[in-house]
Amino acid sequence: MTTNPAILDELRELLPDGAVLVDPDLTEGYRRDWAKDPAAGVPLAVVRATSTAHVQSVMKWASAHGIPVVPRGAGSGLSGGATAVDGGVVLSTELMRDITVDPVTRIAVVQPGLLNVEVKKAAAEHGLWYPPDPSSFEMCSIGGNAATNAGGLCCVKYGVTTDYVLGLEVVLADGTAVRLGGPRLKDVAGLSLTKLFIGSEGTLGIITEVTVRLIPAQPPASTVVASFTSVRDATTAILAITASLRPAMLEFMDRASIGAVEDAMNMGLDRDAHALLIARSDSPGADRAREIDVMAQACTAAGASDVFTTDDPEEGEAFAAARRFAIPAVERLGSLLLEDVGVPLPALPDLVEGIERISDKYDVLVAVIAHAGDGNTHPLIVFDPAETDMERRAHIAFGAIMDLAISLGGTITGEHGVGRLKKAWLPDQVGEDVMKLTERIKTALDPDGILNPGAVL
Amino acid sequence: MTTNPAILDELRELLPDGAVLVDPDLTEGYRRDWAKDPAAGVPLAVVRATSTAHVQSVMKWASAHGIPVVPRGAGSGLSGGATAVDGGVVLSTELMRDITVDPVTRIAVVQPGLLNVEVKKAAAEHGLWYPPDPSSFEMCSIGGNAATNAGGLCCVKYGVTTDYVLGLEVVLADGTAVRLGGPRLKDVAGLSLTKLFIGSEGTLGIITEVTVRLIPAQPPASTVVASFTSVRDATTAILAITASLRPAMLEFMDRASIGAVEDAMNMGLDRDAHALLIARSDSPGADRAREIDVMAQACTAAGASDVFTTDDPEEGEAFAAARRFAIPAVERLGSLLLEDVGVPLPALPDLVEGIERISDKYDVLVAVIAHAGDGNTHPLIVFDPAETDMERRAHIAFGAIMDLAISLGGTITGEHGVGRLKKAWLPDQVGEDVMKLTERIKTALDPDGILNPGAVL
Repeated sequence: MTTNPAILDELRELLPDGAVLVDPDLTEGYRRDWAKDPAAGVPLAVVRATSTAHVQSVMKWASAHGIPVVPRGAGSGLSGGATAVDGGVVLSTELMRDITVDPVTRIAVVQPGLLNVEVKKAAAEHGLWYPPDPSSFEMCSIGGNAATNAGGLCCVKYGVTTDYVLGLEVVLADGTAVRLGGPRLKDVAGLSLTKLFIGSEGTLGIITEVTVRLIPAQPPASTVVASFTSVRDATTAILAITASLRPAMLEFMDRASIGAVEDAMNMGLDRDAHALLIARSDSPGADRAREIDVMAQACTAAGASDVFTTDDPEEGEAFAAARRFAIPAVERLGSLLLEDVGVPLPALPDLVEGIERISDKYDVLVAVIAHAGDGNTHPLIVFDPAETDMERRAHIAFGAIMDLAISLGGTITGEHGVGRLKKAWLPDQVGEDVMKLTERIKTALDPDGILNPGAVL
Repeated sequence: MTTNPAILDELRELLPDGAVLVDPDLTEGYRRDWAKDPAAGVPLAVVRATSTAHVQSVMKWASAHGIPVVPRGAGSGLSGGATAVDGGVVLSTELMRDITVDPVTRIAVVQPGLLNVEVKKAAAEHGLWYPPDPSSFEMCSIGGNAATNAGGLCCVKYGVTTDYVLGLEVVLADGTAVRLGGPRLKDVAGLSLTKLFIGSEGTLGIITEVTVRLIPAQPPASTVVASFTSVRDATTAILAITASLRPAMLEFMDRASIGAVEDAMNMGLDRDAHALLIARSDSPGADRAREIDVMAQACTAAGASDVFTTDDPEEGEAFAAARRFAIPAVERLGSLLLEDVGVPLPALPDLVEGIERISDKYDVLVAVIAHAGDGNTHPLIVFDPAETDMERRAHIAFGAIMDLAISLGGTITGEHGVGRLKKAWLPDQVGEDVMKLTERIKTALDPDGILNPGAVL
């Protein structure tokens, strides 16, 4: 690949000193997100923007020269949405980190580089809460959360990112910055453009500011932890719980995940259990005790071998932390292909059992964790990259799990996004007519195809 | 206007007997929605579709002949979104009324013609609740609710229509039917197209099926009713309440609305009050009493002349019903121009006082009711259509109120939609760049401009 030095000089002149990185030692870390896409390209440059005006300058320059731009938040994406492309620019918003919280209107205006955990902390200083909580909340950014419409553990009761975003500032392909929505709790003036950009994975524009609504701090939660000797029993309990109330969390771990977490954290989980459920209620007053009771009874009735409840928030949080640690814990066993398939809740048992069959058929370990309450699972396919055939089988299993989810009326991605790793399966899920519709919108907003080319479409 | 009989014959052949209305006695009632747009056109025909296939046939026919199509739900819109256009077809979905409720997944699949109240009733049979509650919930349809992203009284705590829609079936301009989203609680596969069509007011496609999530039945609510001798005191109480908790309802009525409702319902409201607040808590257990106490104290501290609380749901509902009846009650005083402006909450006092000044300046009665908790107001401009100059002044006041809302960082429409009556003000609110972006999407999806031409854009 040849690089025209004059084009790069032009970019440098538009931006402050140090904003443009070209040294391969520095740019290497920006080539991949956590999906570790082996097909990652070599970018022409990495730009670390510190203002909306910089993002506009980059996009005007990129439009003029037809140079692809891959927007990047914290780089914690799991579908290759921020994989660099050859000869393109990786545009990082990691240095755009301002936040303003208005406690009277319970609204925060946040730049995209601020981490999810930092938004939560800034809200908490005012007794407020920003609910969406990806397991990566300590290292993922709010811009990436908005670009992927990120979910998390509390979403089963509190909703996902799009449910909290009131407004965006977005820089379009041609460098125009637009303000969509704003600090108004109800606003139907014009098309729902704010919502269109949420979850668009950088293919329609670059999010440079996010206006989110906050809610009063979450009340203390009580927790039920139940072990099961069969996965089917656990899924029976899940359906019984979700049919009767709205848990504040309802998480699932299978035997492989339990073992991996126990290896790493040594917290006394039952290694013999085939499934573990962690459920929470944060309802106020007597309702909390009632909900905990209903959930514990549902587990017992479904055949749980052990049911434990606690009103101690710290003790309950330890189990949630164990669940959040499952991905790094399983990662100690080998390289991972991370799945994110979801199904309508009644199909959850079929999905989990089908994943077991796929694991057996292709002879690869698949550890399953799940935001069970909303049918969103994370099968973690483990392989040794030194064993070529195992890696091949892992990739076949990765696709087979998506095929299974689609056959059950489900989705290939509940919260991680399509990125580059899943785009081959998107048409199978949504159909050709929806793909055509998607392409029409993409073409209308990014006619030259310079925004995150190769992602989603 | 000339009508080509062959074109109409072609349409009739595509549809069941009786689906195509051309008799002016029958079509007259389909020319206007509740906005009573005086500029309503004379349609070529009205089609009452009974299936998605019919809607597809109409759109294929309309595309082939370049005939405009105005989609219509129950015709209860307040911004002229369903005003007929000359030579076009009004496509009514009022006869598409199926619903299937799945209590296990708490999801309902609904055809667009079913009324909001009927969705609520079908959900209630399973102990479930569909929250969005426009004041017109007994006569507005779920399809229209989705097309306008309708709000209501409980939205201050429970969110608006888009927060409950998981999936749509939409017929595009060329007659293609697409399924977007579906019965999955989390799904980020591809662009957020479901959300784009919600609130698009029939300009991008025709909604033929809506998949909504339901939540457990609302707990019984307690109610605070407070009278104030000044509007400013009432808005002080509103800000104090919303800064400290999330009310399940927080409604405002000014003196003119109180008087009109009292004239109609004779329920003992204080006619001397300058403002009335109706606030609700539906939190469980002791939290409800605490919230009612906080809200009552906020009213007292702000100078309320009278504060009344009740735990009796029926007694509380009587006040909510009074508030809902305000529009028909004020309508007894004359013809109405209905406003729907919203502002960020701290600007609410300035908005309400500014509306008073506009009322004085143009010498027209403006009664104000508001979903105060989310800053969404409904100024009702009353005029006598027999008095030409008063009607002229009413229209000037209508625009002046939107200008005022925009100057306060607000919106021209919180929940009714832009339709035809407000489109002249949309560019002032969102700016030229957002209008261009909107036009690009419109053109991509409806290149011939046959879908609801003249609405929004």
